[in-house]
Amino acid sequence: MSAPDAWDEFELIDRLFRPLAEGALEALDLRDDAAAIPSRPDQDLIVTTDSIVEGVHFLPTDPADMVARKLLRVNLSDLAAKGAKPYGYFLNLCWPQGHNPIAQELFAAGLAKDQRTFGIKLFGGDTTSTPGPLTLGATMLGWVPSGRMVRRDGARAGDLLMVSGTIGDATLGLEAAQGGIAGFALWQNELLTHRYRLPTPRVDLSPSLGGVHAAADVSDGLIADAGHIATASGLGLEIDLDRLPLSPLAAEWVARQSDAAVALTRLATGGDDYEIVCASAAKVPQFTPIGRFVSGSGIRVRHGGHDLSVGRKGFRHGKDG
Amino acid sequence: MSAPDAWDEFELIDRLFRPLAEGALEALDLRDDAAAIPSRPDQDLIVTTDSIVEGVHFLPTDPADMVARKLLRVNLSDLAAKGAKPYGYFLNLCWPQGHNPIAQELFAAGLAKDQRTFGIKLFGGDTTSTPGPLTLGATMLGWVPSGRMVRRDGARAGDLLMVSGTIGDATLGLEAAQGGIAGFALWQNELLTHRYRLPTPRVDLSPSLGGVHAAADVSDGLIADAGHIATASGLGLEIDLDRLPLSPLAAEWVARQSDAAVALTRLATGGDDYEIVCASAAKVPQFTPIGRFVSGSGIRVRHGGHDLSVGRKGFRHGKDG
Repeated sequence: MSAPDAWDEFELIDRLFRPLAEGALEALDLRDDAAAIPSRPDQDLIVTTDSIVEGVHFLPTDPADMVARKLLRVNLSDLAAKGAKPYGYFLNLCWPQGHNPIAQELFAAGLAKDQRTFGIKLFGGDTTSTPGPLTLGATMLGWVPSGRMVRRDGARAGDLLMVSGTIGDATLGLEAAQGGIAGFALWQNELLTHRYRLPTPRVDLSPSLGGVHAAADVSDGLIADAGHIATASGLGLEIDLDRLPLSPLAAEWVARQSDAAVALTRLATGGDDYEIVCASAAKVPQFTPIGRFVSGSGIRVRHGGHDLSVGRKGFRHGKDG
Repeated sequence: MSAPDAWDEFELIDRLFRPLAEGALEALDLRDDAAAIPSRPDQDLIVTTDSIVEGVHFLPTDPADMVARKLLRVNLSDLAAKGAKPYGYFLNLCWPQGHNPIAQELFAAGLAKDQRTFGIKLFGGDTTSTPGPLTLGATMLGWVPSGRMVRRDGARAGDLLMVSGTIGDATLGLEAAQGGIAGFALWQNELLTHRYRLPTPRVDLSPSLGGVHAAADVSDGLIADAGHIATASGLGLEIDLDRLPLSPLAAEWVARQSDAAVALTRLATGGDDYEIVCASAAKVPQFTPIGRFVSGSGIRVRHGGHDLSVGRKGFRHGKDG
């Protein structure tokens, strides 16, 4: 397809976005200023929203289709941790003036791909121009049985702290994307870069969350997000870094570092893992126990039988990151 | 209150935003990553979203509380035109690095004021930093009886085209804010500036929309938004600029211009009026008839018994604006 120099808002909607709403009655063909969501008896609509900004949450060199998919996935990750079934989404897109229409096509292609993967449709949104960097917001909707959303504030003293998947690949992937990790082969750097660019929201784990007391996704960093559960639940937390689940690449990276405690702390405070961290009385399949919620407050991080001193905030996007 | 140099995301939420969610069970005290909206039998949830960018949709000199209220009001205006009752909202806030915390307090104060005015609460959102300009998104929720949302595509040939309130003050207000309108007194410039900065969404008119066939709010410009109804409905449109409802100030401004047709066209293609334009078989109280929907396509704009040649797009934010 040959693209014009720039598309205005209506052309963008006609060419790129209307196909993404096809078959969604809620979206009214994107020909209206609003979407209409029919209520579902005995279900709650779960709503989560996150924005990503070029230069803050993704790199100017990240391909536009990957950025689109990351935008959906960071929001799907929040839904997954709440036990919600993905339903549909809204977009708030601020394009830099003179933005490349080819990149906009690629962006829409990325959305289309992940819509199929996750069974969601575009319900509405708005698009405008900005004198600043590409700024992308998504508001994601999902459904849960009434009153059954997995909350952040439900952990109980004595609960196991558990995390899904592996931790740290995205932190290493950012370094790989920004120039490469010394001593790693090209394929290793490329694989890690991919892990940073395209997180995998754990919507597959929603059914496993039925019995957990609390959960959150790991976006700010494992220690920070586990800490959010503890704080919201009025509890303290013990984390054992020796039990941190690592991918083979992350394990290889840790083995190459002079100080394992420092290395593991970096991975446990890095962000963008998009795994699920939860509190549960009993072990949950597909989750690794890495600590325990305790009465009191504060976070105790242990490694090799010793307490470490770790800034509890971990990685924060934007101001601190 | 003395403010620190800068607040991080969690301090912002604790100090400024949690009070805005007080009493809204949906918001879970803003301590979670998502909100839970209980379904309402026999009602549809209406969702609309709009972003505003400093330098595009508001001026760097606009006070932060007014910007906050404008953000809510442009979204409430969409709800009003759909006949929906305002319910609650989500925010996507991208603050420029080093943003003034006093301005953030003022922003929250503006939200609080309009929450009371319109009976809405904050349900959730996210806040991040940006290397670009202040970028603010809101997603507004409202309720209508099932299947009763007033759509854009329901106009019928022969319907009256009607608009609420008056048209053009915001267009003049932008000029007033940017240096003043020549020949107008200070109080006149200040009053028009206020009309630009703080639109009044016509939520009061929702009950009047029960019998109309189609409606939209006037954000892109009267001719453009009336044209959107016509296009979505597969119809043409005739507009008579002699019938354009004007405020006393706008009427005075038109009277001072050498060419009334050019002046009226400017007001009818300017944006940000946030009145409601609708299609209805019969006159609706509080609306002024200004034309008619006809079979066919295209927009015929008339003044003094003559056809005018008017660019149909009117004012568009961003790329064209």
